[in-house]
Amino acid sequence: MDRLLLELRAAVGDAVVTDLDRMLAYRRDQCLLARDGEPLAVVRARTVDDVVATLTIANRSRVPVVTRGAGTGLAGGANALDGCIVLALDRMNTILGIDTESRTATVEPGVINGDLAAAAAEHGLWYVPDPGSRAISSIGGNLATNAGGTCCAKYGVTADHVSRIKAVLADGRIVHTGSDTRKNVAGLNLTQLLVGSEGTLAVIVEATVRLRSLPASASTVVAMFPDAARAIDAVLAIRQVADPCLLEFMDRTTVSAVENMTRMGLDVGAGALLLVQCDGRDAGVEAAQCADACRRAGATEIYRTTDPREGDEFMQARRVALTALERQGSTLLDDLAVPVPQLPRMLSEIDRVAALHDVRIGTFGHAADGNLHPTVVFDAADPAAVARARAAFDDLVAACLSLGGSISGEHGIGSLKVGHLEDMIGTTQRELMAGIKAVFDPRGILNPGRGY
Amino acid sequence: MDRLLLELRAAVGDAVVTDLDRMLAYRRDQCLLARDGEPLAVVRARTVDDVVATLTIANRSRVPVVTRGAGTGLAGGANALDGCIVLALDRMNTILGIDTESRTATVEPGVINGDLAAAAAEHGLWYVPDPGSRAISSIGGNLATNAGGTCCAKYGVTADHVSRIKAVLADGRIVHTGSDTRKNVAGLNLTQLLVGSEGTLAVIVEATVRLRSLPASASTVVAMFPDAARAIDAVLAIRQVADPCLLEFMDRTTVSAVENMTRMGLDVGAGALLLVQCDGRDAGVEAAQCADACRRAGATEIYRTTDPREGDEFMQARRVALTALERQGSTLLDDLAVPVPQLPRMLSEIDRVAALHDVRIGTFGHAADGNLHPTVVFDAADPAAVARARAAFDDLVAACLSLGGSISGEHGIGSLKVGHLEDMIGTTQRELMAGIKAVFDPRGILNPGRGY
Ligand SMILES: Cc1cc2nc3c(=O)[nH]c(=O)nc-3n(C[C@H](O)[C@H](O)[C@H](O)COP(=O)(O)OP(=O)(O)OC[C@H]3O[C@@H](n4cnc5c(N)ncnc54)[C@H](O)[C@@H]3O)c2cc1C
Ligand SMILES: Cc1cc2nc3c(=O)[nH]c(=O)nc-3n(C[C@H](O)[C@H](O)[C@H](O)COP(=O)(O)OP(=O)(O)OC[C@H]3O[C@@H](n4cnc5c(N)ncnc54)[C@H](O)[C@@H]3O)c2cc1C
Repeated sequence: MDRLLLELRAAVGDAVVTDLDRMLAYRRDQCLLARDGEPLAVVRARTVDDVVATLTIANRSRVPVVTRGAGTGLAGGANALDGCIVLALDRMNTILGIDTESRTATVEPGVINGDLAAAAAEHGLWYVPDPGSRAISSIGGNLATNAGGTCCAKYGVTADHVSRIKAVLADGRIVHTGSDTRKNVAGLNLTQLLVGSEGTLAVIVEATVRLRSLPASASTVVAMFPDAARAIDAVLAIRQVADPCLLEFMDRTTVSAVENMTRMGLDVGAGALLLVQCDGRDAGVEAAQCADACRRAGATEIYRTTDPREGDEFMQARRVALTALERQGSTLLDDLAVPVPQLPRMLSEIDRVAALHDVRIGTFGHAADGNLHPTVVFDAADPAAVARARAAFDDLVAACLSLGGSISGEHGIGSLKVGHLEDMIGTTQRELMAGIKAVFDPRGILNPGRGY
Repeated sequence: MDRLLLELRAAVGDAVVTDLDRMLAYRRDQCLLARDGEPLAVVRARTVDDVVATLTIANRSRVPVVTRGAGTGLAGGANALDGCIVLALDRMNTILGIDTESRTATVEPGVINGDLAAAAAEHGLWYVPDPGSRAISSIGGNLATNAGGTCCAKYGVTADHVSRIKAVLADGRIVHTGSDTRKNVAGLNLTQLLVGSEGTLAVIVEATVRLRSLPASASTVVAMFPDAARAIDAVLAIRQVADPCLLEFMDRTTVSAVENMTRMGLDVGAGALLLVQCDGRDAGVEAAQCADACRRAGATEIYRTTDPREGDEFMQARRVALTALERQGSTLLDDLAVPVPQLPRMLSEIDRVAALHDVRIGTFGHAADGNLHPTVVFDAADPAAVARARAAFDDLVAACLSLGGSISGEHGIGSLKVGHLEDMIGTTQRELMAGIKAVFDPRGILNPGRGY
């Protein structure tokens, strides 16, 4: 092991961190219940060469490497393994270029999503994917998890906005995938294979992403419902008449947690809240139709605005949902997706599981995609409560699968859901994935133990 | 070989065709210059079981299998190899279901694109991908080539509309990929790996595709320009002000070929034609802005209509472009994509290549995507002309690469462009692709020899 550190130091100098205190900040992501281990070292890479050198050395010695973006993941994906090297990319955070003609941006992996969005906006351009963590998560992490956001029902997820990736393979070789063109069918789609691969295939060191024109101003609708079922009726009705760029759901527990935290005046007696935004030339008309759909579905209160500042305030209410729930206890946030028509049944299942295990669950999420985040709120100091939270979490995943859902809509499998993966994908897919991993990473050093 | 045929007959009965005359119809696709070979047999599968049985037998005996959808490909991808089994899926053409709630359709691979679109339309739903061949090509083939269409600049290509695939591996195992949910990040994205894999990884036997609401009526603009450069100026300007659902280009040679065939009254003196359609609630306003952009770029004639029948007639002019050029001689159609800002340079390169090799090239294509189809028109009876056509074709591909383009925007590599693939993707990508192919198809029986 000492030899390995010597080699690393010789190769990347003071990018190597072995101080336990300093390593602490690089051990885990934002997922509470996933295990973390004790890394051998953290390498805070500054350049592609640093990444190549680190991987080459690790691969030779068969030492596991856990790649880390900004560590905002919610599935324990960036959590250190015992004896691993954490390869941190936070210092590789340069926006290499914004091409206004071809409407693309080329970035290092550690660039923060919001920084890219701001830089693009200076040119009247829009980097679309907008995870709730956009102010703190990295483009590399967004790509590796295929992060979603609030506007992906209309505009797609991270995968839909990337055209090229430069990545380093486990053995230090560099691969360039994709094309600067909008369409490209030359060979297998390695770009989309890397997207969502959660650091198991290669380390993304550069990406070219697509930008759009900034959309015309948005129109916002907020509607309160007596219960979740009626809010979901409204979701289904809205999908028939409009194509909103944002359609977010919060249940009773979440609404009252947000109100408790923000005192913004939300009705804590409401059974559910929908937040809808329409953009484009005809945003106003579309928003009015969404409001109508909410009214017909039984909304008790409907608020509509075209003022961007007011719209943002409501968005803020949605963005702080998790933080607000975290104030009520420790949280175990799930990330489940069901076909949209199954949303009512999924919500009933969440109620059933909460009652069965006697836990409190606050649910919010991207309703237009059927992507919900039921969040178990519990007392981490009470082992029985922790056990009940975990049991509820497992039952939620099983319920989602029984409704034809996916065990992860946007956060990924990480280390948190490794045990559930094969239930969803089956043996043949798992074997194919394992085979593909072995092609990219024959010695299995990159984020090992992730279920394939 | 006789034993193999006996085994096949025992397994799939009279689905096996060995009669030379009857096999003729299954030997090649629509690409003129790609080689075809003499198949050992054609299996016209009726069921998934037929596919499983055929592959199992072929794999055991290491006999190559060429999968065939409707045979409308333009890259020789479905062309028979000597001694292969052609696995034809044209009889597996049942629409298994349309789910209006979740807005998906599940189909067998041989379903014709246009039949699916028509069935969806009966429910007010829209199957978006619309290749020029939609009336004759299969969904399986569309998926295997990741077919584009006229509306993909706004709505995406075939890949963007598929949620699940059921496929048979070379050894007869069945794999289900994807999820019924809009978002899914559980494991590696095998669905997108199969899309565009041109039959080299597995045989697609079922797919679930997403449907949208039928769009509100479209508004159409046709503009004639004195030269191609000004038409492309208009394309660039249109992208700044609008998001048309269709933006097609035809050069002088193509316009006059179409007019010769259709006598619809196009100005044969025009240097280029743009066909633009805008859809959605505000189609009229958007179309007017597109017309303005054309005028400012120097259009000499502009025609605008909201009449769907008239719009369709213009679309027809674009759809018959290839057929019209085919009336002028044999054709070698290319499929190149460049970043949109490089379109002017690509068009100059096409002129240069035409002059250099003394060939006639008619160019048309999906301008909004930078996807052009320069089509060499030549006399197939004259060996010197054939050689010049091929040389021009190769030079076009090289020119496209030098502009940062892709050697195939939508038709695929097939057998036609195998020699160009590595020039584009490089050795490392090719090796990774070969490794992935070996995972899916260890004995290399599925469409072998395709460059990886
Ligand atoms: C408040 C909050 C809100 C959130 N909202 C959303 C949301 O709306 N939508 C959503 O999808 N997620 C959301 N998340 C989760 C998280 O922000 C995303 O998963 C994000 O994409 C992770 O990015 P990161 O840079 O923090 O990656 P990390 O957490 O550092 O890593 C995530 C995974 O990607 C791998 N990885 C990271 N960088 C690379 C790279 N360059 N190459 C290869 N592998 C790499 C890691 O190994 C790990 O497996 C939220 C998180 C928080 C805390
Ligand atoms: C007039 C005309 C216009 C066209 N316009 C367009 C256009 O606008 N956009 C466009 O993209 N293409 C276009 N094409 C090309 C062609 O129609 C497409 O490539 C189409 O997707 C091929 O479908 P197919 O069913 O005919 O497939 P085939 O030609 O039979 O096969 C194509 C490839 O896919 C493989 N394959 C087929 N089915 C399967 C399956 N089920 N599983 C695995 N592999 C399979 C084959 O092995 C082969 O490699 C056009 C062709 C013509 C003749």
